[in-house]
Amino acid sequence: MYFVSDNAAAACPEVIEAVLAANTGIAGTYDNDTLTQRLNGVFGEFFGRECSVFAVGSGTAANCLGLAAMVPPWGAIVCHREAHIQVDEAGAPAFFSGGAALILAEGDAAKLSVEGVRAAVAGMRGDVHQVVPSVLSMTQATEYGCVYTPDEVAALGDEAKRRGWRLHMDGARFANALGHLGCAPADITWRAGVDMLSFGFIKNGGMSTEAIVVFDPALAETLPHRKKRAGQMPSKGRYAAAQLLAMIETGAWERNARAANAAATRIAAAAGDRLIYPAEANEVFVRASPEDSAALRAQGFQFYDWAPGEIRLVTAWDTPEAHVQALTAALAGL
Amino acid sequence: MYFVSDNAAAACPEVIEAVLAANTGIAGTYDNDTLTQRLNGVFGEFFGRECSVFAVGSGTAANCLGLAAMVPPWGAIVCHREAHIQVDEAGAPAFFSGGAALILAEGDAAKLSVEGVRAAVAGMRGDVHQVVPSVLSMTQATEYGCVYTPDEVAALGDEAKRRGWRLHMDGARFANALGHLGCAPADITWRAGVDMLSFGFIKNGGMSTEAIVVFDPALAETLPHRKKRAGQMPSKGRYAAAQLLAMIETGAWERNARAANAAATRIAAAAGDRLIYPAEANEVFVRASPEDSAALRAQGFQFYDWAPGEIRLVTAWDTPEAHVQALTAALAGL
Amino acid sequence: MYFVSDNAAAACPEVIEAVLAANTGIAGTYDNDTLTQRLNGVFGEFFGRECSVFAVGSGTAANCLGLAAMVPPWGAIVCHREAHIQVDEAGAPAFFSGGAALILAEGDAAKLSVEGVRAAVAGMRGDVHQVVPSVLSMTQATEYGCVYTPDEVAALGDEAKRRGWRLHMDGARFANALGHLGCAPADITWRAGVDMLSFGFIKNGGMSTEAIVVFDPALAETLPHRKKRAGQMPSKGRYAAAQLLAMIETGAWERNARAANAAATRIAAAAGDRLIYPAEANEVFVRASPEDSAALRAQGFQFYDWAPGEIRLVTAWDTPEAHVQALTAALAGL
Amino acid sequence: MYFVSDNAAAACPEVIEAVLAANTGIAGTYDNDTLTQRLNGVFGEFFGRECSVFAVGSGTAANCLGLAAMVPPWGAIVCHREAHIQVDEAGAPAFFSGGAALILAEGDAAKLSVEGVRAAVAGMRGDVHQVVPSVLSMTQATEYGCVYTPDEVAALGDEAKRRGWRLHMDGARFANALGHLGCAPADITWRAGVDMLSFGFIKNGGMSTEAIVVFDPALAETLPHRKKRAGQMPSKGRYAAAQLLAMIETGAWERNARAANAAATRIAAAAGDRLIYPAEANEVFVRASPEDSAALRAQGFQFYDWAPGEIRLVTAWDTPEAHVQALTAALAGL
Repeated sequence: MYFVSDNAAAACPEVIEAVLAANTGIAGTYDNDTLTQRLNGVFGEFFGRECSVFAVGSGTAANCLGLAAMVPPWGAIVCHREAHIQVDEAGAPAFFSGGAALILAEGDAAKLSVEGVRAAVAGMRGDVHQVVPSVLSMTQATEYGCVYTPDEVAALGDEAKRRGWRLHMDGARFANALGHLGCAPADITWRAGVDMLSFGFIKNGGMSTEAIVVFDPALAETLPHRKKRAGQMPSKGRYAAAQLLAMIETGAWERNARAANAAATRIAAAAGDRLIYPAEANEVFVRASPEDSAALRAQGFQFYDWAPGEIRLVTAWDTPEAHVQALTAALAGL
Repeated sequence: MYFVSDNAAAACPEVIEAVLAANTGIAGTYDNDTLTQRLNGVFGEFFGRECSVFAVGSGTAANCLGLAAMVPPWGAIVCHREAHIQVDEAGAPAFFSGGAALILAEGDAAKLSVEGVRAAVAGMRGDVHQVVPSVLSMTQATEYGCVYTPDEVAALGDEAKRRGWRLHMDGARFANALGHLGCAPADITWRAGVDMLSFGFIKNGGMSTEAIVVFDPALAETLPHRKKRAGQMPSKGRYAAAQLLAMIETGAWERNARAANAAATRIAAAAGDRLIYPAEANEVFVRASPEDSAALRAQGFQFYDWAPGEIRLVTAWDTPEAHVQALTAALAGL
Repeated sequence: MYFVSDNAAAACPEVIEAVLAANTGIAGTYDNDTLTQRLNGVFGEFFGRECSVFAVGSGTAANCLGLAAMVPPWGAIVCHREAHIQVDEAGAPAFFSGGAALILAEGDAAKLSVEGVRAAVAGMRGDVHQVVPSVLSMTQATEYGCVYTPDEVAALGDEAKRRGWRLHMDGARFANALGHLGCAPADITWRAGVDMLSFGFIKNGGMSTEAIVVFDPALAETLPHRKKRAGQMPSKGRYAAAQLLAMIETGAWERNARAANAAATRIAAAAGDRLIYPAEANEVFVRASPEDSAALRAQGFQFYDWAPGEIRLVTAWDTPEAHVQALTAALAGL
Repeated sequence: MYFVSDNAAAACPEVIEAVLAANTGIAGTYDNDTLTQRLNGVFGEFFGRECSVFAVGSGTAANCLGLAAMVPPWGAIVCHREAHIQVDEAGAPAFFSGGAALILAEGDAAKLSVEGVRAAVAGMRGDVHQVVPSVLSMTQATEYGCVYTPDEVAALGDEAKRRGWRLHMDGARFANALGHLGCAPADITWRAGVDMLSFGFIKNGGMSTEAIVVFDPALAETLPHRKKRAGQMPSKGRYAAAQLLAMIETGAWERNARAANAAATRIAAAAGDRLIYPAEANEVFVRASPEDSAALRAQGFQFYDWAPGEIRLVTAWDTPEAHVQALTAALAGL
């Protein structure tokens, strides 16, 4: 019974069917296929605003190729100390941008606050001897499965705007956040000041493609060059675009996210007082002694030891109902 | 009737079936899946030697991520003036390597010769004021569909070794070259001095994955870091690995390449005196006046105007027999 | 009466005379002059060990060009949160290295401790998803004018060695540290595990040149390429080398450092309870209310407002005795 | 008798005196000194137009730090095949720009022509798969000591403008070119379309500083960040600025250049039919058999063997009259 990672799940049927359907005859190459050419329109409708969409092959590429368009090589990206781009992307922000730095802000549950952001740059002088903060990057849902409300996003958007920064959203689990909030996609993106979104699909039942969604047309101009140069412009782009279109057009993004969220909600409820953060997306962080962990493992559960005394339980779009039920029972029985 | 590019063809059934077969249940993430873990073994058997294999998402990534492991930022890659890495990769060699330059050698049919390589670096002084040639990169089959024999590769390999350079092979159409030669894969790779190969599958019936094959273990050490950092390490690596395994293990690589080659051979024969280069792989370059081109297009053929008076006709693994027949007739009738 | 920065002082007579003396007739170009060629020998004698010395034009270049030889682009440099390379070099470590990150350790008085270093990397997993700590960089004397003893350096050297890291020393005020300790230069460099030193001269009475001193020959190999490529290899290298040689061979380094240190010591004594850190080099950090600061400024003293309630007083090799006396009196009178 | 390189000459008295004069008391740090702050005004008057001037420590830095402000990482700089930035700067254009490529144009005497430039980019498609030509870089005087007339510069300027490129001038020997032409500095710079100039002083009697002169204010914006980050912003900037001011304000630039030019002119005249290129600046390229070379060396002349059968003779601002006379006699006597 697997609760280690949503990256381990298979792709959902709609995605697979779309890949199969794309596999017919001749198609335009290097983003000139008819599926890729539909991306802007379909996502534009989804977000209620014109946008430019770029398919890439990983979350790292989505985040860092996109960020590179918003920060000069001597610039800096303000993000949470536990942001994926800081902890788990092997320096990719610097690689794609030509050297930009990360400035780390504090905040509970890996959530940024306006205060935390201000504190992170409080000592900076704004002269030529220091890196130039240029982008605020937030993760929705956060690395701890917490969700920013539209107001919280907008507050960060206002702060960014006020400082002349761009606002970037790492949406590796954007669908889960949206499923939790039930708001319009616009409410937590461009309407709240987000300039660019890494819209994650792979964790949510996709196969191999993420989307960079650019709301400010000026920021999209360099992206085709960056994609090509980074080896992120496959010759047979149809298979990538097909996945993104399928997720949006069939509504699989929502069904999958809601399923994963619902399972997490139940697990969180069963965890009771052990719950460390509100489980608003599909991750549940739970206090567990070594004995507790061993007991859970002995019952067949796989999960990640997050920190001493803390375990992480992740659900996916296809986590079997029986496994969820077993886990809730096991947690209750600890 | 489409003869523009082999990148426009669909994926072959074996690849699609392998992707479907991979889509079952839980799998290890980030190259820790069982399919990815089989790559070294399967390719090792194919090449008759231990090797390290890295799946990436484009030919550009295969070439340039690999090259970066062999050249310092102040180094240079010697390649043909018409090499893909020079003409069609948007500066990716410099991006991945941190700034390495290309030194351009001459040669007919986009083929390097020992003499051409020597001439390209003849004026260089070897001091600290100049870039340091560090890698020789050849394309097998060449950008004009010509194939290096094992002896030709070995001559370049010897020259590289003598100079302390690495030998890199851009094998975007390696399978076509192999199909043409009928030799052992080893004969035109490690046995002939090749240190690293971009083994192309996408043009040859693959979907979205190329392989970097490293024959010198020392060169493989940095590649996992480079893959990750470049966003070329997808979380669900199984779908990439499945494609590579299917191509090798089912023999699809060979059947596909031979089919494309055979079609090209027939077209070349029909072109007669118009043929510019020997059609040893799946590309046919033909002299054609504007009237000739128009006449062919009027009959429904699509192709690329390579240069004034020259057209390029590319076959793929699935080019319909009827189209080939029609084209040979049309060429004969010019 | 100027106590803002040691960078504002003029060059000392020995340096100026050496520049004048170098200005005679023809000299070899691009580090092939006879002065540059004496650097290794003179510094080798100074440090009691063979070393390779590279003259560069700024402290940023000394630190970051040198660091780049010790860290891969996906690597990281562990340093103090208040290290100059983090706070005041505008992202130069990433520029010179091709993207390396900084990992920030805590510690009083901008001093690293083994515990602080361990804590900084405690959460790191050592897998391919994270940057790879490769160098420990310490500043001697620290940004707060505190000095590591030989034992303290050696403890950090041991920790670095144990982890397979290199040890780098930002010695912008190395002479001041040495003057304070009175030990052999070797005792706080190679004998204590330092692989590379930025030996600063400019703040200490130099004009325009710093030295990178490399104790491990393997690390020196790439530096000529890096110097040239970064525009840090002037065609008339004699003027740079002359400055370094003069500072070492005349003993000006020591006289200057001791003079600045002595002035700081007296100021620190006058500050009494207001002193924030022990003044072991030529910087004195003093608690001062806004009224105190205003009073000092009214008496003609210039200095830097370090933080609310804190001022920084820096002495130089040529700070006039009368100014020091006036300042001590003024501090006593607050 | 030394005719190898103008980089081997000492600094002229005005420069040395200016450095000495600058060595008085306290000065602002990091380009905040009063000398640095006079640069824009003095050069603005010299060029008859507002400009931004940045002092850097080498010709490589002047060229490549400046070029980096005009070309994106995926862009390209069109230059002559024998341009210094291609042949002798160790890949620095890519280092400073984050990867930009060089596109090499042909032309006699290392001179670019509009036709040569057009031919160099003739085959380029302008799509995302190729590097994007963004700057035309010309060298005035050329690497063979030839000088572009104002009309020739303007023709290249027009071509650049027409294509949306910037025009860059490597003026390592700009003073020599100006001395030869006798025109206004404006005539071969901004009036002819030059956006940025590397104004060389070191070869012409300077000590250690070159100037980047920016005529388009928009291009100057990023340069302070680039300077700092590249370690090209020394803390005691007064010594660099003093050199530039002295050269311009005393007229030493002109006297020195004319002296070197005059010596070269006489040598060229003595070379007669052996002369390979018109000697319009301070370099003379002469046909000389191995026996001729040996004969000259036997008479005490030092020079550079440029190519088989070709030698290079370079004069400097201070080449002794007697040496010139001896050389002309020796050449006549061959």
